Amino acid sequence: MNHDSTGRIVQGLRAWISTAAPGAKVPSNRALMAEYGASPVTVQKAMRTLASLGLIESRPGVGTFVRGVRATRPVDYGWQTAALGAPPSRGSSLSSTQRTVVPDAIGLHSGYPARELLPERLVRAAIARAGRTDAAMGRSPAAGLPELQAWFAAELAASAPVDVTPPSARDVLVLSGSQSGLSSIFRALVGPGQPLMIESPSYWGAILAAAQAGITLVPVPAGQHGPDPADVERAFEETGARAFYAQPSYANPSGAQWSRERGLEILQVVHRHGAFLIEDDWAHDLGIDSEPHPIAAQDDHGHVIYLRSLTKSVSPSLRVAALIARGPARERILADRAAESMYVSGLLQAAALDVVTQPSWRSHLKGFRRQLRDRRDLLLGSLREHAPLAQVDFAPPGGLNLWARLPEGTSPEQVARNCESRGVIIAPGTEWFPAEPSGPYVRLNYSGANPERFPEAAKIISEVLAEN
Amino acid sequence: MNHDSTGRIVQGLRAWISTAAPGAKVPSNRALMAEYGASPVTVQKAMRTLASLGLIESRPGVGTFVRGVRATRPVDYGWQTAALGAPPSRGSSLSSTQRTVVPDAIGLHSGYPARELLPERLVRAAIARAGRTDAAMGRSPAAGLPELQAWFAAELAASAPVDVTPPSARDVLVLSGSQSGLSSIFRALVGPGQPLMIESPSYWGAILAAAQAGITLVPVPAGQHGPDPADVERAFEETGARAFYAQPSYANPSGAQWSRERGLEILQVVHRHGAFLIEDDWAHDLGIDSEPHPIAAQDDHGHVIYLRSLTKSVSPSLRVAALIARGPARERILADRAAESMYVSGLLQAAALDVVTQPSWRSHLKGFRRQLRDRRDLLLGSLREHAPLAQVDFAPPGGLNLWARLPEGTSPEQVARNCESRGVIIAPGTEWFPAEPSGPYVRLNYSGANPERFPEAAKIISEVLAEN
Repeated sequence: MNHDSTGRIVQGLRAWISTAAPGAKVPSNRALMAEYGASPVTVQKAMRTLASLGLIESRPGVGTFVRGVRATRPVDYGWQTAALGAPPSRGSSLSSTQRTVVPDAIGLHSGYPARELLPERLVRAAIARAGRTDAAMGRSPAAGLPELQAWFAAELAASAPVDVTPPSARDVLVLSGSQSGLSSIFRALVGPGQPLMIESPSYWGAILAAAQAGITLVPVPAGQHGPDPADVERAFEETGARAFYAQPSYANPSGAQWSRERGLEILQVVHRHGAFLIEDDWAHDLGIDSEPHPIAAQDDHGHVIYLRSLTKSVSPSLRVAALIARGPARERILADRAAESMYVSGLLQAAALDVVTQPSWRSHLKGFRRQLRDRRDLLLGSLREHAPLAQVDFAPPGGLNLWARLPEGTSPEQVARNCESRGVIIAPGTEWFPAEPSGPYVRLNYSGANPERFPEAAKIISEVLAEN
Repeated sequence: MNHDSTGRIVQGLRAWISTAAPGAKVPSNRALMAEYGASPVTVQKAMRTLASLGLIESRPGVGTFVRGVRATRPVDYGWQTAALGAPPSRGSSLSSTQRTVVPDAIGLHSGYPARELLPERLVRAAIARAGRTDAAMGRSPAAGLPELQAWFAAELAASAPVDVTPPSARDVLVLSGSQSGLSSIFRALVGPGQPLMIESPSYWGAILAAAQAGITLVPVPAGQHGPDPADVERAFEETGARAFYAQPSYANPSGAQWSRERGLEILQVVHRHGAFLIEDDWAHDLGIDSEPHPIAAQDDHGHVIYLRSLTKSVSPSLRVAALIARGPARERILADRAAESMYVSGLLQAAALDVVTQPSWRSHLKGFRRQLRDRRDLLLGSLREHAPLAQVDFAPPGGLNLWARLPEGTSPEQVARNCESRGVIIAPGTEWFPAEPSGPYVRLNYSGANPERFPEAAKIISEVLAEN
């Protein structure tokens, strides 16, 4: 990030240090000033950076020296294995969606929109303004900045029918990202050994959080219009579950959206079973063909625990999300959050609030959705034209992904590996299944990569599938 | 925070709305422009703010109206009580240290230094710079920005003797505050129903995190120089505990510091029992009479799990901390973190790294410590002179607090309430005991309030004690 003259000196000296003997004397500041044409302050800053990286050490009055590499003995941590016992859950904690890949690959795996889709000017201006407010130097209240709580409450209340009392600002708990909300909700409302119903397929982060909390997942199949209410009813009856985690709007991975009627039916089932619906509205800002209609806005009795995130539509660095809950459930979740995190950085909250209350935020969202549509249609078209073996059952009305079914008998992991060796990164669908996969799926994200390369990517996928 | 003309209009209209009937027509933008002498853009911005707060709604082509207050019916959340069952732990999750109090009270309860002690110019400049980097628009790696990992590793390595291999940058996990680190460590390394040794008194946040994780606490008494190694030995033997949470440098609440020898002895005990020492080095930057000497820098075998935070010395809004661990323990903790939070905001990390690598950071720290000394000595002197009944056993060599013992038979809660009614806020010591308090203590923070009022505060405490 640092392309100034300090950066140049640091880079030059690091290269020199990498070949120098431990204890070798570093050229004097005077010599470095001459070599790089830099000021004393710049050279001193570079030396401090190198010292803080542990690469050099100065002995006052003598000079500065390349730090002696300490003898690194191999250490046996076997005693830890005894102390730790068996882990709560096995398997990798790093999703394939979080991988960093070589720059010229076509990345259809990541869960985040490309930078050019984000409101960069708005975000940078908001950070600059927030950095000048009190929020930059103070501590935020535990539940969040009141203005931001009010904004999240108002956003949800805007969808509420007149005969429903929507949640108020005090029901809002600001979080640093919705993942920590999932963990807290699962721990607080379900608990180890207890059943949690979940759509299949569903978000891998939720599956991971549930596994980490020692929770037993109960999969409920979900298609283009969400799960069948009869299946939901049966799962409640058979398992005695008291909670159902779902993404009614533009589910990750499939992009499915529950219809308004389906949502109300399922809310009634949840109501009848005295249970919670954990509504993950992560894609609220990512509607393409439709508007989201949160079920939480229809709920008067504290059955819906609502999660909304701004990370995908504002900036990955302004990690701000909200959890909305009412009644004792709110208190139970709050107790878990208090043990987990005292408060969310006021700077991030102030900057996020600034972005979403700017006049140009609405117009940005419109443009954002238009670009998502173009990208979705281009990837869909490319697959239809060049890779007919990868079947997408329905065009997702929102979200960031296509959910494609491969020919029966194909291994999604093998296909992903073969695609990667040709420069196309895709995510095997296995991670999104709470139990055994119902088929060989892959998830293709259309929001991250350069869309001009979608046809090329589709051709490579097709070649790999043909070879299989 | 908003004192511009938009703010004025919002304020004025909020006052008007509070007395207006639901459905009343809001004055036209033209009328508001005239009334406030404001531009169309300013008035529109104010209207958007009011709309986002849910106070008004506009009907295109008709006008803008005061939003009808929805009928708020009382809701019975009794069904939730049945669904939730008993909580994992009882008691309030809001510490007395987190309370917000009336502005003219003397606050000796808060855990955070006053704003004038913080490097405000450094922080604001760092935020402005970080807001222009890639970190403001991108996603940080899960373990943190590599440069910040390297900085934390180098800080710890600087205290390592030559024959010890210090942790490297890859052993560092960047966190958004050390509280979330505590929760993860306790869940990952101890787990529900298992024993965790803890100094008594100790940090209430650690006690809370342990309770929330369903852990059984084993108190080990700790005095001015830390716990007696024989007590530590005995506790390991009697309980079979595999972990000991401690604050060897400037413990919260007492300010006690383990001597270097005591630290090594205890590390040996931990080693013999194949156990972990969870070293919370929260006050690393808060040494007054001494330097901290982290035990983690003495450990070659992965026994010490090290936590360091920048929140207290940089700014409460730059919530950045680091967890350093090696071996399978690191993997186990990482798995818990992955389920809890995908990554820490790159913006906060870049800004924090910028602050601590500035030339003036070191000189700021010197001045910060000098001010802590002056404040500590002034509060100590004020208590000795005006409130001799509140006995401070030893002047803490670092940290932010005095730990004062009240006369036998006094209720710290009652004293705190009586002090509050006279405008002095203190924290009853009960929260810092993992079991029954060993005596009637209060914690008095000298870093938050205006030091000129310390004598006044001491006199009020003395009056309250005399009445008791």
